[in-house]
Parts: sequence; C-alpha cells; structure tokens
Amino acid sequence: MAERIPVGVERLFDFVTAVFSKIGLTETDARITADVLLAADKRGIESHGVARLQRYVDHIEQGVIRLDAKAETVKETAVSLVIDGHGGMGQVVSYNTMKRCIAKARESGLCLASIRNSNHYGIAGYYTLMALAEDRIGISLTNTAPLVVPTFAKDALIGTNALSFGVPAGKERPFLLDMATSTVPRGKLEVFARKETAIPDCWATDETGAPSQEAAHVLNNLKQRRGGGLLPLGGARELTGGHKGYGLAVLVDILCGVLSQGAVANETYAHAEHPARVAHFLGVIDPDLFAGRAVVAQKMEQYIRLLHAAQLADGCERVYVAGEKEYEAAERNKTRLTLQAKVFHTINAIGKKYGLEIPADSA
Amino acid sequence: MAERIPVGVERLFDFVTAVFSKIGLTETDARITADVLLAADKRGIESHGVARLQRYVDHIEQGVIRLDAKAETVKETAVSLVIDGHGGMGQVVSYNTMKRCIAKARESGLCLASIRNSNHYGIAGYYTLMALAEDRIGISLTNTAPLVVPTFAKDALIGTNALSFGVPAGKERPFLLDMATSTVPRGKLEVFARKETAIPDCWATDETGAPSQEAAHVLNNLKQRRGGGLLPLGGARELTGGHKGYGLAVLVDILCGVLSQGAVANETYAHAEHPARVAHFLGVIDPDLFAGRAVVAQKMEQYIRLLHAAQLADGCERVYVAGEKEYEAAERNKTRLTLQAKVFHTINAIGKKYGLEIPADSA
Repeated sequence: MAERIPVGVERLFDFVTAVFSKIGLTETDARITADVLLAADKRGIESHGVARLQRYVDHIEQGVIRLDAKAETVKETAVSLVIDGHGGMGQVVSYNTMKRCIAKARESGLCLASIRNSNHYGIAGYYTLMALAEDRIGISLTNTAPLVVPTFAKDALIGTNALSFGVPAGKERPFLLDMATSTVPRGKLEVFARKETAIPDCWATDETGAPSQEAAHVLNNLKQRRGGGLLPLGGARELTGGHKGYGLAVLVDILCGVLSQGAVANETYAHAEHPARVAHFLGVIDPDLFAGRAVVAQKMEQYIRLLHAAQLADGCERVYVAGEKEYEAAERNKTRLTLQAKVFHTINAIGKKYGLEIPADSA
Repeated sequence: MAERIPVGVERLFDFVTAVFSKIGLTETDARITADVLLAADKRGIESHGVARLQRYVDHIEQGVIRLDAKAETVKETAVSLVIDGHGGMGQVVSYNTMKRCIAKARESGLCLASIRNSNHYGIAGYYTLMALAEDRIGISLTNTAPLVVPTFAKDALIGTNALSFGVPAGKERPFLLDMATSTVPRGKLEVFARKETAIPDCWATDETGAPSQEAAHVLNNLKQRRGGGLLPLGGARELTGGHKGYGLAVLVDILCGVLSQGAVANETYAHAEHPARVAHFLGVIDPDLFAGRAVVAQKMEQYIRLLHAAQLADGCERVYVAGEKEYEAAERNKTRLTLQAKVFHTINAIGKKYGLEIPADSA
C-alpha cells in the first residue's frame, strides 16, 4: 500500500481553485473545475480526481484546452440544446449546460443536450448528481480518447465512452450508475502493470487482436499505437457478450459526437496540441412527466431494499446498488480525505510555481 | 443441425394472423402481433419468433394475457406518455404507443413513454424499427421475468431486461442495438444444454451463487427456484465488469417499471394465471432537435464506414455494426424463410384446431 497523506477537503478545494485561477481560469470556472475534481476524490474515484491536475495544466499550456474559448449555443428548443465548447474546459461547459438543462426541464419536463468540441469533463456522475440534487433524473455521457477495440478489430478505434444515469430514491441514496463501456478503464491496467499481475482475458487485447494477460505490454502497445487495446464490456468474443459492450460504446459516441456534429471514435485527441474535440451528452428528466416524484421515490426505496435484502452468494458479503460504494466514500471523506503521497507532492509542486501550498492535515 | 422447413413469409403471416384472430384478437391486433413475431424470424432471432406462438396461446388461455383489456392513458404531456396495458397483448399496446410517440415527436421533437401492466412484447428492436422507418431515433426497453442474479446475490431477482436503440444512417443500414443486459438470454443455455457443452463462466451461476459450466443444471435450478440464474453482462465478478451489466439491468427496470408505477424485478410473472405485469419504455427522438437529420445521416455513414474499414484481429473475418447481422438476415428472408421442423409442426398443430394450415413452401 502506497503512503497516503490526509488533507482537509476545504483546504484542498481552495488550493485547486487557486491553482486554476493562477493558470488563467475565472474565479467561477476555477471553482467549478475544482469541485468536479474533488467530487471524484471524495467518491473514491481517484483516477479522475486531483491526480489529474498536472494533465489539465499541461493541456492548457499545450493548447488542448483553450481558456479563451466561449461556449456557443448552436441550437436550442424547449427540450434540447446543441452546444459548441470551442475547445474550452470540459467541466465548465458541462456544468453550465447541465444548469441550463435543469432550468429548461423545469419548464418542459425534460431537456437533452449534446456538446461538441469539449475536453475531458471529469467523472460523468458529477453532472448526474447535479440533476439528483434537484430531485430529477440525470443523464451524463461522454466519449473519450480511442482506447477500445471494436469486436473482431485489431486496433483501438473507439473510446471507453462512459455513461451515467441517476434516479432519485427518496429516503434511500439515489441510484447512480457511472460506468465506462469498456470492461475496465486504462487506469486499471496501470495498477495491474505496477503489481505485475496477470489481467483477465476480458480486459484487453495484444497487437494481434488476441486477449492479453500482460497489462504493461498492452499499455505499451497503446502508447506506440502498435495494435490492440482495451476490450468492450463483455470481452473479446460474442460468446461472452463483447459485441454488447461495443454496441453501447458506439451508442454513447453517437449521442455525444454525432448528434452534436462533433468528433467520434478516433477523431478525438487526433492531433497533439490541438483541442481534443471530446463530446458529451447531458440530460434531465422530471419524474413528474411519468408516475411523479413521490411515487418514483417510493418505488425506488422499495426496489433498493429488495436488492439489499437479496440472499447472498456463498462467500459474498453484500449486494450493492449502483453508486452506493461512492456515496459511502463521499460520506467518509466529507471533510477530510487522503491522497496518495505521489499525488500530494505532484499537486504541491504545481502550486509552488504560483506561490501556493496545500499543507497536509495533521489533525 | 435440426431439419428446417421453408415457408413463404406472406403465407406464414396470414396463417399467424388467422390463428390470433381465431383466438380472439381483432383483425388489426392479430396483424400487429403476427408482424412482430415474423420480424423476429426474418431477422434471425428465432427465439422471439413464431416459435413462441404456443406460449402466447397458453398465456391467453391462462389469463396471463387478457384479450378484453383496453389500454389506458394514465398521463400525457407534449413529450411523454404513461400507459397502463391492463394485462393485454404486449405487442399491441407497444405498437400503438410507439405510433403515438412518433406522432407526438413530430410536434415536440421527442416523446418518451413508460408502459405498465403489459406482457411479453416480442423483440425490443421491432419498436425501434418503427421509429427508424420515420427517419427518427428509436428507443425500446423492456423488463422480463426474473432470471438474472444481481452481482454477489444468490437468487435470480431481476430480468434479462433488454434495451434497443436505433439511429438512422443515411445510405448505410441504421445502427440498431438490440440486446439483453444479461450476458446471454435463457434460450442460449437451452441450446448448450441440448448440446451438452460447457458454458463460459460469465453466463450463469449455480445454487451456491458460483459460476456454473452446466447449462442443464442452471435451467433446472431456475425452474425449481433453487437458486442461481443468468449473469449480468460482464459475469459474476466486479473484476470482469458484472456490476455494470447489473446496473444496466436495473436502469432498464427503473425506466420501464418504476416510471410507469408498474412492476419491477421479481414482481413480474409473480403469479401464475395472472397478468405478467411486464413493463416497457419506448421513445422517439427527432435528430432535427440536434445536428439535424441530414447531418446525422452523413456522420453515421462515415462512422459505420470507419468501423467496417477497421483492421481485423488475427483470425477474424469482419467487423460488424450493431444490427447488421439482423438486417442481412432480413434481406435473405424477405419472401421466404425456414423454420425448425419442430416449430413448423407445433404451429401447424395449433392452426389445425381452428381449421388452419400453413403449407410448407416447396418452391
């Protein structure tokens, strides 16, 4: 277990906000971005938290993320939005668009938005949580860099395209699905590469297109574009359902990149030092269009209790509902969380350039 | 390979329509139901085709399906419908609701419908195809009998809950995803049980909750409710992504059974000789809300061509797009298809009770 350093959440938020302000984001945009990153850390999704600060800084310096971008409303109806992010911060355009979706859904009952020319927007679930906070159903999808091989193909062509759906559940915690459509994200291979542990057959393929057990080899191939990549949920074969994960990944890509007239598949991150052209799809649905908020809350409570009461498979300890682990982590990490020492030192080094420091919490 | 008997599609349609008429469906409803069943056979999804005729007949006789049911509009807005099927034919209420969704989407740009108290509605993709025929995006979800074990649970509690999305693609065939959220449907276990072939670890669990290689054993357990069942897409473990398939299954259940104030999880098919209380969710989205029909068609063409042009994994022959295999089968089976001899004789025996016969096509 790598060393971990405790940090106060409020201090960390102020630090990350200050770093983004120094780099050139407005105070408002810096706060939005910091909040999205911290939400990931609090929820235990460290791969999408402040560990990415260096990458955002690099992308801003390289012109992948353009701080002078002003998001443009390309099309608007009572129930829909098409937004062009013009290469700005993914978190900012997504947060602002979700706010508009929530406002429009208050009038129309629902709103769907497709966003083009954006950048990495953090955890998909952040925007779903915004809808849940208003007692609405939230939808958040994004495409990503092409790391996944279509079923029967050799090369990584499509993203780990994530999908998140959140449904309010009354006295229970909301149902909050937030998943990549690949079996695992790249970060999981990095963990197994460090441990030098064999990876399951359904995770990734080598340069011939055959399932690989060697995480480091797959990562190296991806870096050098030598073939192979991550596998869609379900693995390499139709026999194990891999074509379903592949179909879901393309569906997410269509809603994000096709409906917005943006980039799909290997069109994202196609040119270094240019905007990544990542695309998103956000949505808000008012349960009052259907059975109504009270009924939906009550039925969701019953459903979640049914799942919790399920008899356990031998050797298993608990049946979870989507999002439950992350909600519990967020409750544990409400005021204080721990960062990997490496992450702590890296973000502190970024801060020092601007005269900022995040002190370890010694409490 | 079991013996197969060629049958003219038009004759088969007339025969199935006549059988449903004799049983008590109106001429219109009989034609709708026959068309849904034949669409499955034409598209090569035999498990959902006329092979199910006996089951529909049984369900009508047993009171699972109520022919005197009149579907009721529980709630209606410009963009949504809640429908109560009151235990009638799943195909009829779904067809009629999708027609209304299409009409409403012509005005509002989109319409979503949640349907409760229905019955088995055939292939999910049929209703998606209705939207595609109007150059619109189609959505069709359904819950099913509880055959699937939640991740870490012992007993089958949730359905193989299917989801279908269709997107028009200009000169290319539409993208048409139509999948159960379990790794495989029950029918696939039946095939492997007959062949006495071991099933992969990600398909099903035994009565202890451990992955089973014995299809016949799992099927027997399911029948006798002795524990175990089908696995969600991704298999039994989080390591292989099983929690994602489980999350998707619950999401489908929520949109169908919760939003309609209907039945979810093990509330469907809970009482023999009573309506099955299956629930559906249908939707139509006009691409003109977003980048527009022409742009979406053009970008979809490009995307599909990109996938088709992908370099193949060693030993693989072709990269498919969702729905492609089924479209090709439908083109092959446009006027004539073959039925398994057993299915042919079974449906003929049903017909004979009403003085109807479907002659084998000797052409």
